[in-house]
Amino acid sequence: MKPDVRKPWEEWTRADTAHRVVIENVSPEIDGGRFPVKRTVGEKVTVTADIHTDGHDLIAAVLLYKNHGDAAWRETPLRELGNDRWAGSFPVTSLGRAIYTVTAWVDRFRSWRRDLDKKADAGQDVRVDLLVGAMLVEEAAARAGGPDREALREAADALKVRDEAEAAEAVQRALDEGLLRRMGGYPDRRYATVYERELEVVVDREKARFSTWYELFPRSCSPVPGKHGTLRDVVLRLPYIAEMGFDVLYLPPVHPIGRTHRKGKNNVAVAGPDDVGSPWAIGSEEGGHKAVHPALGTLEDFRHLVAKAGEYGLEVAIDIAYQCSPDHPTVTEHPEWFRHRPDGTVQYAENPPKKYQDIYPFDFETEHWREMWEELSSVIRFWIDQGVRIFRVDNPHTKPYTFWEWLIAGVKEEFPEAIFLAEAFTRPKVMNRLAKAGFTQSYTYFTWRNSKWELMDYFEELTQTEMREYFRPNLWPNTPDILTEQLQFGGRASFMARLVLAATLGASYGIYGPAFELCENRPLAPGREEYLDSEKYEIRHWDIERPDSLKEFIGVVNRIRREIPCLQEDGNLAFHPVENEQMIAYSKAADDLSSIILMVVNLDPHNTQSGWVDLPMDRLGLDPAVPFQGHDLLSGARYIWHGGRIYFQLNPAEVPAHIIRIRRKVRTERDFDYFL
Amino acid sequence: MKPDVRKPWEEWTRADTAHRVVIENVSPEIDGGRFPVKRTVGEKVTVTADIHTDGHDLIAAVLLYKNHGDAAWRETPLRELGNDRWAGSFPVTSLGRAIYTVTAWVDRFRSWRRDLDKKADAGQDVRVDLLVGAMLVEEAAARAGGPDREALREAADALKVRDEAEAAEAVQRALDEGLLRRMGGYPDRRYATVYERELEVVVDREKARFSTWYELFPRSCSPVPGKHGTLRDVVLRLPYIAEMGFDVLYLPPVHPIGRTHRKGKNNVAVAGPDDVGSPWAIGSEEGGHKAVHPALGTLEDFRHLVAKAGEYGLEVAIDIAYQCSPDHPTVTEHPEWFRHRPDGTVQYAENPPKKYQDIYPFDFETEHWREMWEELSSVIRFWIDQGVRIFRVDNPHTKPYTFWEWLIAGVKEEFPEAIFLAEAFTRPKVMNRLAKAGFTQSYTYFTWRNSKWELMDYFEELTQTEMREYFRPNLWPNTPDILTEQLQFGGRASFMARLVLAATLGASYGIYGPAFELCENRPLAPGREEYLDSEKYEIRHWDIERPDSLKEFIGVVNRIRREIPCLQEDGNLAFHPVENEQMIAYSKAADDLSSIILMVVNLDPHNTQSGWVDLPMDRLGLDPAVPFQGHDLLSGARYIWHGGRIYFQLNPAEVPAHIIRIRRKVRTERDFDYFL
Repeated sequence: MKPDVRKPWEEWTRADTAHRVVIENVSPEIDGGRFPVKRTVGEKVTVTADIHTDGHDLIAAVLLYKNHGDAAWRETPLRELGNDRWAGSFPVTSLGRAIYTVTAWVDRFRSWRRDLDKKADAGQDVRVDLLVGAMLVEEAAARAGGPDREALREAADALKVRDEAEAAEAVQRALDEGLLRRMGGYPDRRYATVYERELEVVVDREKARFSTWYELFPRSCSPVPGKHGTLRDVVLRLPYIAEMGFDVLYLPPVHPIGRTHRKGKNNVAVAGPDDVGSPWAIGSEEGGHKAVHPALGTLEDFRHLVAKAGEYGLEVAIDIAYQCSPDHPTVTEHPEWFRHRPDGTVQYAENPPKKYQDIYPFDFETEHWREMWEELSSVIRFWIDQGVRIFRVDNPHTKPYTFWEWLIAGVKEEFPEAIFLAEAFTRPKVMNRLAKAGFTQSYTYFTWRNSKWELMDYFEELTQTEMREYFRPNLWPNTPDILTEQLQFGGRASFMARLVLAATLGASYGIYGPAFELCENRPLAPGREEYLDSEKYEIRHWDIERPDSLKEFIGVVNRIRREIPCLQEDGNLAFHPVENEQMIAYSKAADDLSSIILMVVNLDPHNTQSGWVDLPMDRLGLDPAVPFQGHDLLSGARYIWHGGRIYFQLNPAEVPAHIIRIRRKVRTERDFDYFL
Repeated sequence: MKPDVRKPWEEWTRADTAHRVVIENVSPEIDGGRFPVKRTVGEKVTVTADIHTDGHDLIAAVLLYKNHGDAAWRETPLRELGNDRWAGSFPVTSLGRAIYTVTAWVDRFRSWRRDLDKKADAGQDVRVDLLVGAMLVEEAAARAGGPDREALREAADALKVRDEAEAAEAVQRALDEGLLRRMGGYPDRRYATVYERELEVVVDREKARFSTWYELFPRSCSPVPGKHGTLRDVVLRLPYIAEMGFDVLYLPPVHPIGRTHRKGKNNVAVAGPDDVGSPWAIGSEEGGHKAVHPALGTLEDFRHLVAKAGEYGLEVAIDIAYQCSPDHPTVTEHPEWFRHRPDGTVQYAENPPKKYQDIYPFDFETEHWREMWEELSSVIRFWIDQGVRIFRVDNPHTKPYTFWEWLIAGVKEEFPEAIFLAEAFTRPKVMNRLAKAGFTQSYTYFTWRNSKWELMDYFEELTQTEMREYFRPNLWPNTPDILTEQLQFGGRASFMARLVLAATLGASYGIYGPAFELCENRPLAPGREEYLDSEKYEIRHWDIERPDSLKEFIGVVNRIRREIPCLQEDGNLAFHPVENEQMIAYSKAADDLSSIILMVVNLDPHNTQSGWVDLPMDRLGLDPAVPFQGHDLLSGARYIWHGGRIYFQLNPAEVPAHIIRIRRKVRTERDFDYFL
């Protein structure tokens, strides 16, 4: 990548000096091309680059790209934006890996044409200049075939004039738009500069960008209180989940659970005889990562669930937690994959002074890593065979980045429709690196971002910086591990507000239910954010038909998301000023502004808040002189507004949010057809 | 640079998984390491990088560097700044090219020590943990030599305990700072990650960073009006130039001047018989780029000038203008280095509809570029043989970037003290690319930046963005080509203000004299920025002893620059708010704040302006509760100030600027020694 200008003289070629055009600062390009950007099928990649050359010559530049499966490069022109910045776009049309780069060259004909025009304008004698042009056109003729070759030869001849009288007419022919177009087809690209890197795009299916997740514990799904739920019980729950508008059903690990050092209810160190244990303590004599917990059912039950879920528009996502209970068969079959302490015991997981003696981490520094990596990869492939394509990966930040890069690239090479969600609640740079390394989606800090400035700051980073190219946020207001203080103390209003925020700030979001829709808000203890009586350690029975459930509200919000494509992407988010720190306003709009959705949310779950929102009329394509309509898709109410300064008042005792479709056209007495 | 995670399985090694640490986002790094950064001898390079790994292990990281001539890497530790960002510095100590990179590894001992501390604090049984530590210490002992080996072995033994009573004491020994230091000397770096690129620093001499240029036309230096000045006349002018405090004397081309199509006075198309022509129309039958114009003297005279200038602390810089008059010997000796038009004539320079028939550009697309490049390079080497080390390069943006990269790298490999100033008044990205390609210093847009916001905007870009790493500005308020409207209409006050701005905003600046110090302000015509009766086309006689000359003022300003090191760099510039758009305030301070200089300039040459400047007391290390002194180095006045809000009033009829040294200590009655 770094041409050595101090190389021996004999290694220099004419190309070293003839490649005069420079292409630099190409975007998107993650870490100098080290990592791909991400798109979904049907999206486009807009590429920009600084392109310039010495002197005053004009440049021509094209974007080169190959969609997955393309044998040859395709081309689309780049246009200059000013200040030597060029831009162009290409569509990604197939799953897999697309590549792109840029090429540019000195456009002699257009440079000559521009100069000829100026000279002729100044009344200069241009006969010699016309001869220069004739040579350029003849050279192009030699590159052309068919009728163009003849046409160009004729055009060249017409530029060879004897006297100034003929010259005037020749200038007209030289400046002819048709000749320019024809010449554009046969450029001299011998010394075109090709950008030094080919850049990659991972092209996923739509669900990678737009997905709505529901997490539940199958063992809590029995209709009989206290009874261990099964995968068959989950099948019965599918209509309920589908009715709320979710499209991914994510299950915590469904494998046999270890008995050794099993945790009791509320995470106490010693389990009682009837305690069911944590699903993340994977493996027992009944099997490991490729087995189904007998209490949940069989592998056939699992496949049945996957099939039935599909009928309801739901895809089953499973949890990939690469760790073992002490009873996992692998612990005895492959002791060399674990770290052993000097006393001969296996090293359990710990975060000193906390000990997780029910869990053995894999030792990624083992000498036998090859066999171990292959086994871990085979787990994914096993579940792919059962029909799973979505994997929520537990704590990926405790395994090496390279392992994930290898695993995900390998799986996606064969199954490009696979989706991996990184559950890494850790430091920002580690989360970003995992996203770059291949994770399709990532958990985010949204869970703890409550105030207006926190939300604006974080979502501007996610959607307006380079992160938008590789990090797809998946927003969770709660998880089995996290019941935030906001939800503990904010009551129903905060559940509704957090749901609307998650569902409209992010194209992908999820909830852990039924705890969420039933507004479960009891923490393990004051100041803790674990749930009391957490399903991680016991079976819960949820009364999903409770009248105060948010299930209908969630259903409305998810229906809005499904119906309005501009809510299905992240990069189109824009915040708008409101003169009230407890109110946040933002919009998402289609590229062509054919659809504009405005969200206004009251962040204060206790008090009615009001304020003026300032809409950027110009950017939204709204005429400040013409009234427009706001249609609140949550309440159904319609408002007529004049100008971009709009008053809102939101009462948390009712609905703490608006999701408003902006309609440009307000019907008037002139719209007679309205009355037909 | 891009490890292929999809490579065949048999190509994988243990290192692929064992290199767990990631090093990314290293700074400074220009275009992915494509170009070097720039420093001068004695400066330091502060390197930052994101460094992190999976899991919770602690990391150790060092900066690796080699100064020019170093055979082996040197190391200096990186320290963590927070958020996984690390920083460290190394000094550049020798001319030439330094290189640097970063390496980092998991620090097992420190990770273990941290965990042990937490476990012991929690009262846990740590006997097995101590055995783990003993192994780590024993491994280090095996890497150590001499007394450390024995000491580490003993330390390891002390960690092997039988009962909990012994354990308490062993924990103390394990946490001992001395053991930590000793272990730090023998880290396990087998799986250290080394950053994938070695990054370069071009290390120049001090004058590359801090220089004060004076340009004059030797032919205007005769004491006898109308007579063609000589290089001997320039020798007589040296005391005058040195007295003003300049250290570079830059001469326009000193070569024979062509006669064909010679331009007359004020750039008229046809010269009279006595017209001297433009020095940039290089070459006649008397010689080309390696000859001295006979009217100026001989090559010996030139060498004499270089030597005498040195006695006055002045270095002679010459003009490198790679172009030929039609009479240049090369035009006939090497017609293949020029472009020929279809009528057989040589293509002259043009910028349609303007024609420069007195100048033939070299054809950088010639097939014979090798011989031509060598000849052009030999011009530099010829003048190096005459004692020149500073080259002001005319219009480098009309020659290929690669040519400059080759030329400058080649010359500097042999003569690392060589300095190249790029005279490219062109588009920003082209100017930046030339700086990256190797030019030591660059002309800037300062010439046309007059208003406060223009100056702040531009200088923040130059000094606070990545440009500071490779683009060294050289500020010129005027040049023989540019008499700005500001100077045309602003009178003496604007000359003084522009001088102070140039001399204090930039570590390097220059003026074209004596036009500057004599406040020459007559344009060729209204609305033009060329000089009337420009020295480019005729001999001028300047009365340098005129009482209204700015020579003393310039001398004072340059003396201040020489005496105060913090004015000799660019990166320490900070602007301060003033509530008056016609007043600008900024400071430069030493790293350790031992020296702080505050500039306040009235940008309005016609009216007295006043306003309150807000100083960031905290950042400047000033106690708001303690009075401090401002000492105006231009007027000699001293002020006592309390707090950071200071009133200034500047009358353009007097001096339109302050250069104030901030002195922290104000003497009081307690400083008795003052009265001794």
